[in-house]
Amino acid sequence: MTTRFAVLGAGRIGQVHARAIHAVPGAVLTAVADPFADAAKAVADQYGCDIREIAAIETSEDVDAVVICTPTDTHADLIERFCRAGKAVFCEKPVDLDVARVRECLKVVAATSGQVMVGFNRRFDPDFAALKAAIDAGRIGKVEMVTITSRDPGAPPYDYITRSGGIFRDMTIHDFDIARWLLGEEVDSVMAQGSVLTDPKIAELGDYDSANIILRTASGKQAIITNSRRATYGYDQRIEVLGETGMVSARNHQQNRIEMADAAGFHAAPLLDFFMTRYTAAYAAEIAAFVAALRDGTPMPTTTHDGLKALELAEAALTSAQTQQAVQLTHS
Amino acid sequence: MTTRFAVLGAGRIGQVHARAIHAVPGAVLTAVADPFADAAKAVADQYGCDIREIAAIETSEDVDAVVICTPTDTHADLIERFCRAGKAVFCEKPVDLDVARVRECLKVVAATSGQVMVGFNRRFDPDFAALKAAIDAGRIGKVEMVTITSRDPGAPPYDYITRSGGIFRDMTIHDFDIARWLLGEEVDSVMAQGSVLTDPKIAELGDYDSANIILRTASGKQAIITNSRRATYGYDQRIEVLGETGMVSARNHQQNRIEMADAAGFHAAPLLDFFMTRYTAAYAAEIAAFVAALRDGTPMPTTTHDGLKALELAEAALTSAQTQQAVQLTHS
Amino acid sequence: MTTRFAVLGAGRIGQVHARAIHAVPGAVLTAVADPFADAAKAVADQYGCDIREIAAIETSEDVDAVVICTPTDTHADLIERFCRAGKAVFCEKPVDLDVARVRECLKVVAATSGQVMVGFNRRFDPDFAALKAAIDAGRIGKVEMVTITSRDPGAPPYDYITRSGGIFRDMTIHDFDIARWLLGEEVDSVMAQGSVLTDPKIAELGDYDSANIILRTASGKQAIITNSRRATYGYDQRIEVLGETGMVSARNHQQNRIEMADAAGFHAAPLLDFFMTRYTAAYAAEIAAFVAALRDGTPMPTTTHDGLKALELAEAALTSAQTQQAVQLTHS
Amino acid sequence: MTTRFAVLGAGRIGQVHARAIHAVPGAVLTAVADPFADAAKAVADQYGCDIREIAAIETSEDVDAVVICTPTDTHADLIERFCRAGKAVFCEKPVDLDVARVRECLKVVAATSGQVMVGFNRRFDPDFAALKAAIDAGRIGKVEMVTITSRDPGAPPYDYITRSGGIFRDMTIHDFDIARWLLGEEVDSVMAQGSVLTDPKIAELGDYDSANIILRTASGKQAIITNSRRATYGYDQRIEVLGETGMVSARNHQQNRIEMADAAGFHAAPLLDFFMTRYTAAYAAEIAAFVAALRDGTPMPTTTHDGLKALELAEAALTSAQTQQAVQLTHS
Repeated sequence: MTTRFAVLGAGRIGQVHARAIHAVPGAVLTAVADPFADAAKAVADQYGCDIREIAAIETSEDVDAVVICTPTDTHADLIERFCRAGKAVFCEKPVDLDVARVRECLKVVAATSGQVMVGFNRRFDPDFAALKAAIDAGRIGKVEMVTITSRDPGAPPYDYITRSGGIFRDMTIHDFDIARWLLGEEVDSVMAQGSVLTDPKIAELGDYDSANIILRTASGKQAIITNSRRATYGYDQRIEVLGETGMVSARNHQQNRIEMADAAGFHAAPLLDFFMTRYTAAYAAEIAAFVAALRDGTPMPTTTHDGLKALELAEAALTSAQTQQAVQLTHS
Repeated sequence: MTTRFAVLGAGRIGQVHARAIHAVPGAVLTAVADPFADAAKAVADQYGCDIREIAAIETSEDVDAVVICTPTDTHADLIERFCRAGKAVFCEKPVDLDVARVRECLKVVAATSGQVMVGFNRRFDPDFAALKAAIDAGRIGKVEMVTITSRDPGAPPYDYITRSGGIFRDMTIHDFDIARWLLGEEVDSVMAQGSVLTDPKIAELGDYDSANIILRTASGKQAIITNSRRATYGYDQRIEVLGETGMVSARNHQQNRIEMADAAGFHAAPLLDFFMTRYTAAYAAEIAAFVAALRDGTPMPTTTHDGLKALELAEAALTSAQTQQAVQLTHS
Repeated sequence: MTTRFAVLGAGRIGQVHARAIHAVPGAVLTAVADPFADAAKAVADQYGCDIREIAAIETSEDVDAVVICTPTDTHADLIERFCRAGKAVFCEKPVDLDVARVRECLKVVAATSGQVMVGFNRRFDPDFAALKAAIDAGRIGKVEMVTITSRDPGAPPYDYITRSGGIFRDMTIHDFDIARWLLGEEVDSVMAQGSVLTDPKIAELGDYDSANIILRTASGKQAIITNSRRATYGYDQRIEVLGETGMVSARNHQQNRIEMADAAGFHAAPLLDFFMTRYTAAYAAEIAAFVAALRDGTPMPTTTHDGLKALELAEAALTSAQTQQAVQLTHS
Repeated sequence: MTTRFAVLGAGRIGQVHARAIHAVPGAVLTAVADPFADAAKAVADQYGCDIREIAAIETSEDVDAVVICTPTDTHADLIERFCRAGKAVFCEKPVDLDVARVRECLKVVAATSGQVMVGFNRRFDPDFAALKAAIDAGRIGKVEMVTITSRDPGAPPYDYITRSGGIFRDMTIHDFDIARWLLGEEVDSVMAQGSVLTDPKIAELGDYDSANIILRTASGKQAIITNSRRATYGYDQRIEVLGETGMVSARNHQQNRIEMADAAGFHAAPLLDFFMTRYTAAYAAEIAAFVAALRDGTPMPTTTHDGLKALELAEAALTSAQTQQAVQLTHS
């Protein structure tokens, strides 16, 4: 069985997914949609697929699944439309910036028995997956502490910052998902501090560029997340998990493996500095996991529920940073 | 000029300092005091010094400086007595577990123009000192974020836990001092979470064994400290500082530099697992710095004020963990 | 301009090249040839190309270039045939196991102005290429010493050993090419020692499984190559170059970037254990370089002359190991 | 029992040994001898020992052992004199630059049942000792290949080069000893290449500054040694041993453990750049091993026989470099 895909939105992340679909055995790219004709044409030319309107894709018999790469404020609507149309849906995070809207969307997904995967690509990074497998294999015993260092090479454009929902909803949301995944328990308490250290303009836009967050579960497990919008040495993405019998950690990705030594010491390359090069393998593996779940009829590996939980943590972090109090979460 | 020392208290840490004094040029060990005759005799025999009562040392003409290694609850009294006796004082941290008592002691120090150094040995670790020097040399620009990972190989005996003032006053206090030192600004806000994950008995004793703390300064700089009483792989002591133009970090100390490779992969030694082996060089450098400050008439490198500030942070962390709110600090 | 390829030989390495051609922009796979119908069909099915006889490919108007992946003893003949047919040729090393036959083949290549690239894939490995670029950029000054560690995870099948021309012609030949490339001068003297340490059967077959070789150029630069047919920890491929102002080295490729720490110490993954996974990027880059040279009319990056020189070094090493004397080489 | 020492020669290496004796429990420094009064006085003042003539030490009742740190051409004579005087002898390598003279000296040692240890300090380096212990514990199975990288930060003064017997007798001799120790078998064949690459003046003095050597034992085990007189990045001292089930290696010693990261990449400190700082622990452990052997009546850990064997390898290497042939050794 081959899964026939349409990609909605041919921007940067749409192109990443188009390439991933092309590379995954068992998947084929049938159509692409984008209001910008040039963007759609570029994808269509490169992968030999059709250009169609979104409405046409909704009724396309030769499309089994869609990948939603459109602007965030369209995600929830499109998930609902395509669930109703009986298509499987892969949606870039977040489902929406508003928790209430996400809950509504989840109801539609449930009502239509929709198959929806939310794109938390990092879970599919080969190193992070190996780290998780080591934990699941019991190699560090019970998990106690998760430490996530997550720093971008540089801040996004100002207009993105204003639309993104802020650092916690835009950037930390990936780390919240990873923390939940590795803690293996829901988070009960969130403490966060935010600062503006790299660019005062970010404060004017009402956001932070530097943040630290402590998460705590009911059983007392903790996770700590440290974020910055600026790391001159590249895209810093590290995870470390302490357990009762050991620790497992995932190292960064440098641009190459050569080392220079001279009178000033030893020198190695900076980190990969772009999420697309750093997570190339993760994007491919994530689409492959989606295809495999559809083929095998197994549950989606990351769900709209995961999207909701990560968003709740983001909101709690923002509240904590603003109120200087821990925010307690309840789980229904 | 040679500084003639007496060591008060010949227990584990007293022996460390006796050895350090013996090794430092310009210092000589003249006397040791300990209510346990065997302990005093062991030190006296090894380094060829006298055994004297504390009261006798107070009036010994051939003693210029004392190193206070007695139980914590005697520190403040001894500092005051030896300041009044006109001796230079090196005192193991903490000055006292009670902030009010420390403040009182500071008044006596000030009134007597006492020369008192508090033993925050980690500042004198060659790697941490090199890290600080790199920051001071401007190699990472303005400091933004400090990350301190500090984990003990195993918990201390239960009776020590009950006397120690708890994890924040006993263990994190070193990290608080390092954070202040590296941030270069006083901390305005403390958030902390504590858990008991390694041994339920520690909860019964009213302490935590696992904690994460976020510190924030007035200008928005942040530090994050992650502590555990148990790290199976050894004494985990790492520092990482992010600045505007780069990051500097200090790696751990493994037991040796050999690496095994076999069909299961690559294997290296665990970390040094004891503070005395890990910080041997730091203890020697700390005494040398004390001797140098006395000789040169320069200010003490770490003062009772530093001791007070670190203790205030410990109290704030405990309050934050208990109240689930950030604790705001004021600095007079 | 698109380069249209035929792959001759659909075995393991033929499949590697078919995949590389598929992935390289500007290249298309038109046909595959293999006496084993199943092998040819597998490639044809996967990449949507024709199956043709070699003779048909010789006269195919829609084939611009061939990739020769047939058994070694057919390489020289096929190079000559396809040069005469006016096709560009990419040939897996070696051109032949016999130096005289290679020289003959070179004459035909010259007479037909043939465009022939010999597959020394390692020069195209991104790390080795970065190492070479650092040298060319003058970052270590004049090259003095090259150290190549090259160990296979395990020995090939016995029948391959008997056909391969022995460890120097089969395995070390890659290292000889890298040494020439990095020394930047022809080698004047070869000293070699061979042993059988992993499997006595290899001695019965007249080969070595362990070897060390010293190369020396006219100006006194040296290279040292250390080979083994068995490295339990994976495919060990390291290069280190000492120059007058520094050293540059290329590290190994582990299977992942996670690290475990426990009471026994720190543990990381074994190396990638197969040349196809280790050199995936190199195979792609090598075909891309071939395509680029054809497109731009620039010289082939690795030539039959390089193939000849590496083979001469292999013969010299064998002679040295047998006679226990350095073998002097002359260069016309 | 305390071993009472006299140090003969108060130069650089004599001072190293005086400090080591001072630090080793069970050893005391009684006397020092040096024709340069200032040098002798400096040691006497620092460690509180007597200054005596060599002849007086020969008959000193309060001296149990001597450490010979005088010029090389006096070593053999002094060994003989002090063996006859019934003193235990620790002698810096080499015993003599001439193999015949060494053999003669060995006869006197044997005839007097002298206890003589030759200072191959590297065997006592904690990392190299741990590497050897791993091999002895069977962790890599049977040893197959030893790789020794040994590079000095810079060449010694010209007049030292002329007196030292050349690179093989002066510098590689340490590596020859390590190779014998790790191979666990005597070497049957030596191949060597020497070059002058760092300073043409060294060629005028009849020496090499760059060399590679292959050693081979009767059973086919091999060792490879790579030497240079110049490594801008510090004192490069690495060992790697390949065995049938794995590999064990010893890493270099950097000046500290901090790492900088910035837009240009990751940067760490150069290596320790002096044999005395790099091998501080080895010098202390070596004297401790000598003292322990005397105390326990166990065999000397490194003997004049080891000194002879290393010197024979040095001579063979020089012959091989000059004749461009392997040199075969016989072992009586």
